[in-house]
Amino acid sequence: MQEEFISSKQNAKVKNWRKLKTAKGRKQQGLYMIEGEHLIEEAVRSGVYLEAIILNETYEGAYPTGFSTYRLAAHVFESLAETDSPQGILAILGAQSRFNAAEDFQQLLAKPGDAINRWLLVDGVQDPGNLGTIIRTADAAGYRGVVLGTGTVDLYNDKVLRSTQGSHWHIEVVELPIETAMQTLQGAGIPVLATALHREARDYRTLDYAAGAPLALVVGNEGQGVQAKLIEQANLSVFIPMPGQAESLNVAVATGILLFAL
Amino acid sequence: MQEEFISSKQNAKVKNWRKLKTAKGRKQQGLYMIEGEHLIEEAVRSGVYLEAIILNETYEGAYPTGFSTYRLAAHVFESLAETDSPQGILAILGAQSRFNAAEDFQQLLAKPGDAINRWLLVDGVQDPGNLGTIIRTADAAGYRGVVLGTGTVDLYNDKVLRSTQGSHWHIEVVELPIETAMQTLQGAGIPVLATALHREARDYRTLDYAAGAPLALVVGNEGQGVQAKLIEQANLSVFIPMPGQAESLNVAVATGILLFAL
Repeated sequence: MQEEFISSKQNAKVKNWRKLKTAKGRKQQGLYMIEGEHLIEEAVRSGVYLEAIILNETYEGAYPTGFSTYRLAAHVFESLAETDSPQGILAILGAQSRFNAAEDFQQLLAKPGDAINRWLLVDGVQDPGNLGTIIRTADAAGYRGVVLGTGTVDLYNDKVLRSTQGSHWHIEVVELPIETAMQTLQGAGIPVLATALHREARDYRTLDYAAGAPLALVVGNEGQGVQAKLIEQANLSVFIPMPGQAESLNVAVATGILLFAL
Repeated sequence: MQEEFISSKQNAKVKNWRKLKTAKGRKQQGLYMIEGEHLIEEAVRSGVYLEAIILNETYEGAYPTGFSTYRLAAHVFESLAETDSPQGILAILGAQSRFNAAEDFQQLLAKPGDAINRWLLVDGVQDPGNLGTIIRTADAAGYRGVVLGTGTVDLYNDKVLRSTQGSHWHIEVVELPIETAMQTLQGAGIPVLATALHREARDYRTLDYAAGAPLALVVGNEGQGVQAKLIEQANLSVFIPMPGQAESLNVAVATGILLFAL
């Protein structure tokens, strides 16, 4: 396929792509942008819809063929890139169908996939690096999916995407208020555990779930943790005892400890 | 104590403080800079040497008293701050005595403290957020200290400090080539485990160390992992089996899983 050269920032395509830098623009167009050779390769391997490959005029690296490809003058390319030292390659992808009605989630639960029926519920995580790492960890642990609650940073934020390393293409991503997701899970007979920061909760080391038993875990905001009303709604609240002096663990680290221990 | 007002970026003190933004400047002056009310409170609580408190002229929040305090014109303050939206308060601290000779480390090992004699060895971790989170995790797990090997990002980098949340004041921080630290640990009869990315290593779930038994764990660079020569030098190499599709875990998450499981 031939490459189209674009030399102006005012080009209509470029203007639309630039809008993908905001959550609003991504929602309107149903598209999002990723950066870097490795992540783009991973996207192609995952079979996600790829609308365009965008190269800096100076880019000499490899890129997947068979897609609409554009070469941009350096100053035009830089108006799109998010990182300070961009690798010179971007791709525009179609947003995944993200289940955001309780009925969709219910149907998903009713159809067990190959993965174990375990879900990670994310309540208000703010830091993009943390969210991306949490999704990557849930994928590594073989979880079936994550639910992103209200107030959690947008999945298609460029820093989130960089930290996921493509894991959001491997597992289900659901956008639902956490209380709704919990009701749906509980209605399907799946116990929901919430992480708590206090020692009245159950020490996670005393839990004994069969490997692969359906389960959901709620993790919370960096400062506040999981909301009190959600802890109350959960079947059980758990905490990680810390012998040292640190006040708390990073939320992605705490998630990793729990997902791999349960 | 009275506040001194500084209105010029060319002020000699300000010029010296600005040099603390580089690893070279920090090494020359034996000082480093931290930002934000919470971290500064934590520093005061930890009893670390505090040389100066620096406030933006617009700052109206709380700050510890009894220290040399400076108020800076906004443009002067901004020339020092590292974050995009600084909180308006900085502090200059004395660098901790960081043991960086093998003999010092040997003496440290010979004097068991209150903490369990467990050490985390960090081989070439590059991302400041990862290193800070790793130190915070080692603190939470009650480890006695961390060893930062050659090629690991500087402890006093502002992003590292923000992620440690003060944990580097709670545990020992040693700067030594990892092979030297390993030899010293092994000479003291402490087994050294290295994390490996391949499945020929031992599944960490099959290990059974008594709680509190002396132990050291080596974690490695984000891309390459622990260097092969170090894996060879270790008493044992371990890995974390991942049932999912992710290629790897974030190094701070992997560290958390291992520290809390061992």
